[in-house]
Amino acid sequence: MAFWVSSSKVTLFLRGLSVLFLIASTILIITDDKGNFRYKDVSSYKYVVGTGVIGIAYNFLQIISFAIFRMLMNNDSDVYRLIEFYGDKAVSYILATGAAAGFGATKDLKKLQFLNADGKSGFFNIGYASALLLFLAFLCTAILSILSSYALPKKV
Amino acid sequence: MAFWVSSSKVTLFLRGLSVLFLIASTILIITDDKGNFRYKDVSSYKYVVGTGVIGIAYNFLQIISFAIFRMLMNNDSDVYRLIEFYGDKAVSYILATGAAAGFGATKDLKKLQFLNADGKSGFFNIGYASALLLFLAFLCTAILSILSSYALPKKV
Repeated sequence: MAFWVSSSKVTLFLRGLSVLFLIASTILIITDDKGNFRYKDVSSYKYVVGTGVIGIAYNFLQIISFAIFRMLMNNDSDVYRLIEFYGDKAVSYILATGAAAGFGATKDLKKLQFLNADGKSGFFNIGYASALLLFLAFLCTAILSILSSYALPKKV
Repeated sequence: MAFWVSSSKVTLFLRGLSVLFLIASTILIITDDKGNFRYKDVSSYKYVVGTGVIGIAYNFLQIISFAIFRMLMNNDSDVYRLIEFYGDKAVSYILATGAAAGFGATKDLKKLQFLNADGKSGFFNIGYASALLLFLAFLCTAILSILSSYALPKKV
């Protein structure tokens, strides 16, 4: 029980931190606008936004369900642990792919000279910062995924 | 014990399948050559190759260590399970990022007209196929990561 309480505080902290990183990442890339060149023009950046929104929704729902079901009702069921295990695993993979697509596209598009004319290199620098924040959120969710693996009910 | 034996066969099958997908992915992208335009010209494709090689090396080492330490010596220690848990987790994240970078770069570079002149679109189609094979290897490793999470020794 002592282990569960202390790890649940760490969990809540990491979920909060993930949400903050993801909100910052999403705002940064959505507002990234350099002379008619927006995030919607780059497929990988649209994907960065999509994964960010999924990550915010998931962690937000987990924080709310934590407050309602687990803290108030003192409910720590096996079903909840399973949902958390698969949820953390799936969302951490999704965030990893979002960050990778963001980094990859930024690196390859920055190399193309004509795209960087008239101050457009600033556009890709912000894309890079957004992918970096997404990567930090991924790190938090990957730690959450390790914690929820340890909390997994044993089958054997 | 019965559970361990049956799941170890599944594990071996999934590792073998991962290695096959990864070898196919790596060969495909390394031999992708359309008129002086090679995988080395695209940073994301170099990353695809890098993650493929890491995935091959890791799964190959696991298959060998499985044959030597676990089958012959009937050794299924907690330390080995921990190594497998963190190894599968790390490598599945690495493969996910490799596939995402490959897909993202392919999609965004294909959109640029001048890169697709004189038959170069075939170059990106092969890049796409290589990323798809990497994604299939990721799926196998993600299942392995779920299995090794269930096999994790309990701490509490």
